[in-house]
Amino acid sequence: MTRAISVGLAGLGTVGGGVIEMLHKNADLVAARAGRNIVVTAVSARNRRRDRGFSIDGLQWFDDAVAMAADPSIDVVVEVMGGSDGPARALVEAALTAGKPVVTANKALVAVHGADLAALSEKTGTTLAFEAAVAGGIPVIKSLREGLAGNRISHVAGILNGTCNYILTVMREQGRDFPEVLADAQKLGYAEADPAFDVDGIDAAHKLAILAALSFGRPVAFEAVYIEGIRKISALDIGFARELGYRIKLLGIARQTDAGVAARVHPCMVPESSPIARVDGVFNAVVAEGDFVGRVMLEGRGAGAGPTASAVVADLIDIARDRVTPVWGAGSGSLSNAPSVSMDGHVCAYYLRLMVVDRPGVIADVTAALRDFGVSMGSLLQRGRAPGGAVPVVIVTHETQESAMLSAIQKIAQLSTVLEPPALIRIEPA
Amino acid sequence: MTRAISVGLAGLGTVGGGVIEMLHKNADLVAARAGRNIVVTAVSARNRRRDRGFSIDGLQWFDDAVAMAADPSIDVVVEVMGGSDGPARALVEAALTAGKPVVTANKALVAVHGADLAALSEKTGTTLAFEAAVAGGIPVIKSLREGLAGNRISHVAGILNGTCNYILTVMREQGRDFPEVLADAQKLGYAEADPAFDVDGIDAAHKLAILAALSFGRPVAFEAVYIEGIRKISALDIGFARELGYRIKLLGIARQTDAGVAARVHPCMVPESSPIARVDGVFNAVVAEGDFVGRVMLEGRGAGAGPTASAVVADLIDIARDRVTPVWGAGSGSLSNAPSVSMDGHVCAYYLRLMVVDRPGVIADVTAALRDFGVSMGSLLQRGRAPGGAVPVVIVTHETQESAMLSAIQKIAQLSTVLEPPALIRIEPA
Repeated sequence: MTRAISVGLAGLGTVGGGVIEMLHKNADLVAARAGRNIVVTAVSARNRRRDRGFSIDGLQWFDDAVAMAADPSIDVVVEVMGGSDGPARALVEAALTAGKPVVTANKALVAVHGADLAALSEKTGTTLAFEAAVAGGIPVIKSLREGLAGNRISHVAGILNGTCNYILTVMREQGRDFPEVLADAQKLGYAEADPAFDVDGIDAAHKLAILAALSFGRPVAFEAVYIEGIRKISALDIGFARELGYRIKLLGIARQTDAGVAARVHPCMVPESSPIARVDGVFNAVVAEGDFVGRVMLEGRGAGAGPTASAVVADLIDIARDRVTPVWGAGSGSLSNAPSVSMDGHVCAYYLRLMVVDRPGVIADVTAALRDFGVSMGSLLQRGRAPGGAVPVVIVTHETQESAMLSAIQKIAQLSTVLEPPALIRIEPA
Repeated sequence: MTRAISVGLAGLGTVGGGVIEMLHKNADLVAARAGRNIVVTAVSARNRRRDRGFSIDGLQWFDDAVAMAADPSIDVVVEVMGGSDGPARALVEAALTAGKPVVTANKALVAVHGADLAALSEKTGTTLAFEAAVAGGIPVIKSLREGLAGNRISHVAGILNGTCNYILTVMREQGRDFPEVLADAQKLGYAEADPAFDVDGIDAAHKLAILAALSFGRPVAFEAVYIEGIRKISALDIGFARELGYRIKLLGIARQTDAGVAARVHPCMVPESSPIARVDGVFNAVVAEGDFVGRVMLEGRGAGAGPTASAVVADLIDIARDRVTPVWGAGSGSLSNAPSVSMDGHVCAYYLRLMVVDRPGVIADVTAALRDFGVSMGSLLQRGRAPGGAVPVVIVTHETQESAMLSAIQKIAQLSTVLEPPALIRIEPA
């Protein structure tokens, strides 16, 4: 057997602990699969003395992760610190520049600086691996970039954030509203103290940007992703969705169109019968559609120490076996330069829910506004009666262009009989 | 770009045509992903003149596939002829011996002779790739062998035969019986003229044997797989399954136990709410459970020209990129020698359906037989009344050992009041 690979591990949170545990507990199996031992020999984190619930005895300590990468005893760097800039970025750049392969779980870094990092990886001929950055332990990067490599992918979509999926699942099952369920999720450790990255859709957008780059063979373009989170989703709308045969999911969806790549993250109503509608709780799922393979769906745990470590260790085994793949699946000379297209041109059916004064003429005003912008209604539902008071009205449109819909909504929101900002949710076919 | 890879393609049926079409239609994309062009330059099949619906003009023809493999102009051999012996085996052995990488879609060959072929592949340092052999275009081999490589897999299961899943789906949806639905499936091209390989579970067992070998890191052991097909499944039992909250699926299931590896293919009742219960029609799905990653499920089209070509081309791209993985995930020195365990020791709950004479005392005889072999009943259901005539009786047992259950059944079948051979279906927890 070739000599062992020495891993320098930067970041000793949950994921770092998982990597140490997996390489220790499954050392024999990893060695068999890798053809050599893979051993963490050095670590770096912010605070050396913190109690982490696992031992770092016998491992070389570095206060400075960049210095660790430069140490000649280190063969491969694993970066699980997180953050799109700062120490994580400095470390990854330093390692790639020094010709040391990097394995990262850092979706923000890869989404925001991935184009530059891929160029650096290509220039120095050094592997940048990031299976753990998307959908935890589900081998979605490998599946898209290698397993479906011969396909023209038209469309990739997924439930990419377990926190949001958990919150939406509990809201549906218990009929409770967002703030309350978020607070519970925070207590249970399913949501961060500062939940913005998750519930505002940014984390899902990082992952979608990466999936889109892999699927369509072009450099990552995070800034072009349309992003809307789940804060505005109410128990009321989840109830109406159920009545209409839908579930509400936060999806990331990227599509190759004639005009370019459209990538968006937002709450969607998906038919209850579609496979992705039934992926509940903290699970993630990714669906890709290829011209030869048809539709493939992958499902599993998208976060947590174990699943993330599983992906990191798979990347380390690939490195040990010299299995190399360009960051975006092809060398820079062969990447697509398809432009990104904006959300304005998006076309779908919309769910629109208003709170209106219950009196004659209100519906006429609302439907006139829709008509004025060419929005065609599929159905209208008014529930309950409260003469002079507030009642919900639900409208489902036929396929409509986003820009027209937004103009109509703006006009409707200004009607004095419309009491709250309208709730608008895009309907996504199965 | 490095020079093109010349592929010699043996077998010009549906799959062979798919491979030619994909390498032609997506040539630019394949070249970008592979880092070089991949071109079919020679073909071999039984009949040169047959009208195939695609052109083989300009390709070198070989009557003898082994001679094609020996031709110095050929870099890689693709074998899509099928059959566990005969020309397919001779070709693959000849190519590996000559140091030419082989891509095969042939599950029978890999399941039956895979241990020897892996040894040959290791000896000559030549790749034997077979992504297309299991679950069509779903990258399940890559996911298990590379994506989940650091996990100890406890259990792998799947819907591995689209023909059976299609037949069972139609039987359930239309309440029709097996022979009729099979005949329709044959007319539609979803079942072969000789359907035995599919409906008797042999094809699924080939695939399961391969999955088990990959999951548990040991040489393939097809002969140890317990096999039962779907011919005995009736519309009556599908109806009762529905009443009990189950669906009937033909599953392949392999489990690592303390005693060794248990691998079995048979119809199962699975809870309606389990993800695998909802995989319908010609779709395949594979679920694997790893100690770190948890449960991962992959779903997609398990057969057909497009999906199979997708897997073959992915293997070719791996070969072009020099991404090499030992056949069973690790070198022969690191493989497990866990024994195979027989079905006798299997423990599960059973669904037992009898046709009995509707008269007093019959149930007492049946339940006495169960008691005599220590089989504990969970529930008993008698439907309809036909004094002196035949009525169905359904029994669901508590967890029982297979050998005890079979002994009890044998005794029950001999009762003069039991009119037909008992129907026995194993219940599989979600």
